[in-house]
Amino acid sequence: MPSIDLNCDCGESFGPWPMGDDAAILAHVTSANVACGGHAGDPSTMRRTVRLCKALGVAVGAHPGYPDLQGFGRRSMAIPPHEIEDLMLAQIGALAAIVQAEGVRLRHVKPHGALYNDAAHNPALAAAIARAVVSFNPDLVLVGLAGSVLLDAGQEVGLRVVGEGFADRTYEADGRLRQRQLAGALIDDPEQSLRQVLQIALHGQVQSHTGSTFMIQAGTICLHGDAPAAAQRAAIIRHGLEAAGVVVQPF
Amino acid sequence: MPSIDLNCDCGESFGPWPMGDDAAILAHVTSANVACGGHAGDPSTMRRTVRLCKALGVAVGAHPGYPDLQGFGRRSMAIPPHEIEDLMLAQIGALAAIVQAEGVRLRHVKPHGALYNDAAHNPALAAAIARAVVSFNPDLVLVGLAGSVLLDAGQEVGLRVVGEGFADRTYEADGRLRQRQLAGALIDDPEQSLRQVLQIALHGQVQSHTGSTFMIQAGTICLHGDAPAAAQRAAIIRHGLEAAGVVVQPF
Amino acid sequence: MPSIDLNCDCGESFGPWPMGDDAAILAHVTSANVACGGHAGDPSTMRRTVRLCKALGVAVGAHPGYPDLQGFGRRSMAIPPHEIEDLMLAQIGALAAIVQAEGVRLRHVKPHGALYNDAAHNPALAAAIARAVVSFNPDLVLVGLAGSVLLDAGQEVGLRVVGEGFADRTYEADGRLRQRQLAGALIDDPEQSLRQVLQIALHGQVQSHTGSTFMIQAGTICLHGDAPAAAQRAAIIRHGLEAAGVVVQPF
Amino acid sequence: MPSIDLNCDCGESFGPWPMGDDAAILAHVTSANVACGGHAGDPSTMRRTVRLCKALGVAVGAHPGYPDLQGFGRRSMAIPPHEIEDLMLAQIGALAAIVQAEGVRLRHVKPHGALYNDAAHNPALAAAIARAVVSFNPDLVLVGLAGSVLLDAGQEVGLRVVGEGFADRTYEADGRLRQRQLAGALIDDPEQSLRQVLQIALHGQVQSHTGSTFMIQAGTICLHGDAPAAAQRAAIIRHGLEAAGVVVQPF
Repeated sequence: MPSIDLNCDCGESFGPWPMGDDAAILAHVTSANVACGGHAGDPSTMRRTVRLCKALGVAVGAHPGYPDLQGFGRRSMAIPPHEIEDLMLAQIGALAAIVQAEGVRLRHVKPHGALYNDAAHNPALAAAIARAVVSFNPDLVLVGLAGSVLLDAGQEVGLRVVGEGFADRTYEADGRLRQRQLAGALIDDPEQSLRQVLQIALHGQVQSHTGSTFMIQAGTICLHGDAPAAAQRAAIIRHGLEAAGVVVQPF
Repeated sequence: MPSIDLNCDCGESFGPWPMGDDAAILAHVTSANVACGGHAGDPSTMRRTVRLCKALGVAVGAHPGYPDLQGFGRRSMAIPPHEIEDLMLAQIGALAAIVQAEGVRLRHVKPHGALYNDAAHNPALAAAIARAVVSFNPDLVLVGLAGSVLLDAGQEVGLRVVGEGFADRTYEADGRLRQRQLAGALIDDPEQSLRQVLQIALHGQVQSHTGSTFMIQAGTICLHGDAPAAAQRAAIIRHGLEAAGVVVQPF
Repeated sequence: MPSIDLNCDCGESFGPWPMGDDAAILAHVTSANVACGGHAGDPSTMRRTVRLCKALGVAVGAHPGYPDLQGFGRRSMAIPPHEIEDLMLAQIGALAAIVQAEGVRLRHVKPHGALYNDAAHNPALAAAIARAVVSFNPDLVLVGLAGSVLLDAGQEVGLRVVGEGFADRTYEADGRLRQRQLAGALIDDPEQSLRQVLQIALHGQVQSHTGSTFMIQAGTICLHGDAPAAAQRAAIIRHGLEAAGVVVQPF
Repeated sequence: MPSIDLNCDCGESFGPWPMGDDAAILAHVTSANVACGGHAGDPSTMRRTVRLCKALGVAVGAHPGYPDLQGFGRRSMAIPPHEIEDLMLAQIGALAAIVQAEGVRLRHVKPHGALYNDAAHNPALAAAIARAVVSFNPDLVLVGLAGSVLLDAGQEVGLRVVGEGFADRTYEADGRLRQRQLAGALIDDPEQSLRQVLQIALHGQVQSHTGSTFMIQAGTICLHGDAPAAAQRAAIIRHGLEAAGVVVQPF
């Protein structure tokens, strides 16, 4: 039977500022990417989020990003790869200690925002991230954009890697994500999202925004949690997958 | 034979700003307290410092502090104990991941600056710190001011604790450290420092700044590394201890 | 005719994290205290907020706080007064430049959170704040807790000062605000808020939470904007004041 | 008689971390670019530095940079121009308030590090910086790389602009600065520095690192203050200029 993992970014509140409704979206996914204090999150938010994941039985992963709270890790920073390696370790470690204190296991690492995008294309950056993960814990799974150089870098150092597909973003004909600010980049209709996810899970294919189709190897689907109707959309996708005979489970 | 550990704070550079001469002082101590990005340090400074400790065979400990770079963790912050517990985990974890990546073992935790002082007197704060350490790794040693409530809190949760004495600070008659800004708080003369350390290591005693003597249980002596002649003073103390038959070794 | 100013704290979003509904609450007040990047706010949030104030004709003031985003300036920090003076200048100046760029006039300064509370009781801190304000611009009005030492310090250096009363907080018999975490500290009922505000505006009196009455000299009333029904409560208070013949206008 | 301004970056300490010897280098220059808390500096460092400039009679300018302390503003950040405009205002304003409190006049603005370099080539970024400066105070002088688009942008909005030449950096044949990490990018020999500065001041020319010569319109020369022998080099350049009949004075 075909199977797939559903993941969401969470723990992205900071101090007095809440973001998203983690409890609502986490109820529908199998993996959580928890912000580590770089682009979002703080130690107490991390703790609260890990407890929530534990209570809901959701697998916990680290979600490190560029160290830029104000920009939410969405502004690329020209940081040399060896410094990226070090800050990845520090961010993953900060979360890992909290995970450890809660008696849970850290399962994966997925970079955030501009770091995710930059690492999809930049081999030196990708290699730095892979080195950080494998040197901390070779049993961690590295999650990145399906087909990206980040996954190649992970495999190179012996990590298990999992490609990620998107439910609410469209793709270019060459397999890249269509840039957020372009028309037609976002999928608002939950049914269209479901169709894209089913095509990925059942056939390993995506229809690009130009109509052409390409192959994609995605073991997990990203469900964004910050939109108002995010939880409802997540429920529609999960139930649609299960109705189509896809097993929704952690990778 | 009597024995004692010598420790120093290190890794307190930040970004482009160096602090102290870690290589010089680390050559004379047996334990290092590495800043964790709270009051000082950044991921790449942590990495460099852990590598230095590894090369010199110095035991590595975490040195978490109030999250206040500009104030260097020397300004008390009214942070609730449960948030202190979380930020301790995040800071210790950040360093632990780097230690892990370097194939070294994290051995102890010693709070920094105002957090160290506050935890010496405030039982709720001390308990929060002890909970953080034991929940992360019960094999870690908790280091605190000799005779302080932090050590009580550590023992309460089952941690091994080690009391710290000072080579360059004088004591009040009641065993507290004389406050930095008061006259006679600092010991500038290396020979006077050595006499104080020898009295601690050989007799478990300190002569307070008023002349009275009290008992102290200190398994480690703090050598500050930021003064210009710090390394020279450290060498004098270490050689003086060894000449007096005290074994200088990690606790 | 009796008159009073209504003020609210605003511009307390940070980067991707919104806080409160500034547009809704600002519609009902005559003065705005804009966060300056210390406890909240960032340059673009400041800009947006100043534009909103300008569009609504609300007088703009600076709302500096302890430099602690995660703690939202609600955790006291043991910062020496001369450093408080410098950081007040930097925070006020950051906002003042944006106010200048928008062609508006900066009218007042009101400290935030723990700095507000600490400055109400600590003469050295209060004097540092007053020195910062007067040295930047002696025409600024200093706003602080009615009856507090901050107002004394402002008068001492020749500043015009305005005491602040609260619509949604109760008072102790000695005139201090009842601490937030104590039972009965907050006033939820808008009608009770209105009664308290009317008593202040018409009679210069407050009935404390124990039932006794004391005199208060308050030229402005703080309306908090972060509660869900904040704008509605503000409208009730404003209309209630006007209905009772109180002129609501900037101090 | 030919004349030129000598400037140096200063106020780049942060909290407990000193940088450079501002007093030594400021003794030899006529203009100071004071860090504003973005890439370096903090309110108390700014204050101390402005007082030093005042005592030495050096003209004070703002030296804003990317908000990245750890990277010292040397790592480009993909911040949209309108946010750059806002953060420029906040940083300039922070310093301007301190300058005001010290009874001095703010005279110029010169961006720092990666922002300086990016603004030399990126017209949208340059325009944002120019808008910030002119909207805050149209009497400020905008300083940027001689021949750069930043100066064009400044002139476009009506600012007086001054081009900057370098004493310790070599140039490419096309007039760009040779990148720091390339061989031959830095000029170590003070006599070679002096020759380059004299050529700029007397003839408006520079000999590039390939040997070719190009025209340069530079009203100020940057003297870096962080090298150990910086003050000595500055003295050699200043005396060399004066000996050659060049008047060293603020632009």
